[in-house]
Amino acid sequence: MRRGKFIVLEGGEGVGKSTNLQFVTNWLQERSISFVQTREPGGTPLAEELRELLLRRREEVVDPVAELLMVFAARAQHLARVIVPALEQGQWVICDRFTDATYAYQGGGRQLDRALIEQLEQRVQGSLRPDKVLLLDLDPQTGLERAASTGAADRFESERLAFFQRVRAAYKERADAAPERYAVIDASRPLEQVQQQLHSELEKLLP
Amino acid sequence: MRRGKFIVLEGGEGVGKSTNLQFVTNWLQERSISFVQTREPGGTPLAEELRELLLRRREEVVDPVAELLMVFAARAQHLARVIVPALEQGQWVICDRFTDATYAYQGGGRQLDRALIEQLEQRVQGSLRPDKVLLLDLDPQTGLERAASTGAADRFESERLAFFQRVRAAYKERADAAPERYAVIDASRPLEQVQQQLHSELEKLLP
Repeated sequence: MRRGKFIVLEGGEGVGKSTNLQFVTNWLQERSISFVQTREPGGTPLAEELRELLLRRREEVVDPVAELLMVFAARAQHLARVIVPALEQGQWVICDRFTDATYAYQGGGRQLDRALIEQLEQRVQGSLRPDKVLLLDLDPQTGLERAASTGAADRFESERLAFFQRVRAAYKERADAAPERYAVIDASRPLEQVQQQLHSELEKLLP
Repeated sequence: MRRGKFIVLEGGEGVGKSTNLQFVTNWLQERSISFVQTREPGGTPLAEELRELLLRRREEVVDPVAELLMVFAARAQHLARVIVPALEQGQWVICDRFTDATYAYQGGGRQLDRALIEQLEQRVQGSLRPDKVLLLDLDPQTGLERAASTGAADRFESERLAFFQRVRAAYKERADAAPERYAVIDASRPLEQVQQQLHSELEKLLP
């Protein structure tokens, strides 16, 4: 059986991930491709409980290494229980954020050592990497303004602008280093143009 | 200021940790030594929430690497917020389980690669190690019979006997490799004898 494709949608706050995820899943449905739609952190009951611990605002200062290990704990569980079995059964997996978000938020935002992230990535994922990362890129100022209208800020969303500037820079650095695996999509453009580009990237993935 | 001592009480199920922790804290109080009593996994609000996720029995099979990363996430938080500040302020820290339990339960019990545990230990703890590990050693069959009378079994307590035999063997292997840091205490003996040995180990830690 042919292994499914592993597609990840990435980006900072307010870049339009939800709308564009819907576009991707519509595209898959139109082509009768069997797929699993999931998200990180999360995607299993335990991993969703870890997500809740990660996102909830709390009095206690969270140690950045503790945060990083919780992210990879959730990822190990998600891979073992959902992502790897689905890909092996030939299903595509479309995931709202994955390890690029760890490089962006914990590596860029929190300024953690990238070598530690690489070690954990290697250990938790082995050789598994997304087939394509669709990176929605947007000036954080604009993104935060868009995101502010969608409810109370979680522990990450309540970071400062400089944090999100580092997040954006880390995402772009990742994309620049492996252009064949990333599609950088200018999320400031009209939705129709964004989705034209998504469509053309998705078509390239068909055999 | 003189750094406080870091004392850990270790052992499998039903070895009498609670009773003997009380003995240790009484000894500290009698000597007017300022101390923090804490436990792993746990010791901060976030780390206690991770403990609850780790111990709760669930339908979902927990990936062993996910479990290990949750343990070290809780530990990173506990070290940053509680253990290191206390030791630096000259307080002693008496902790119910620490990294030896990870070598025993995740390394021995779950048979995870010790090299991975070592890497995480190095990364999360730096050079910090307990000054003394008081290891209560008991045949698991006896321990499980004792523990069975104390309420519903958690996710670890509901493992099989072979798991706890590996836990015990891993604890003893650790103690054998660094006898200066470990006191192996035969927990099958009468409580009075156990506590005489605890007392003599504690006295050795005084300047």
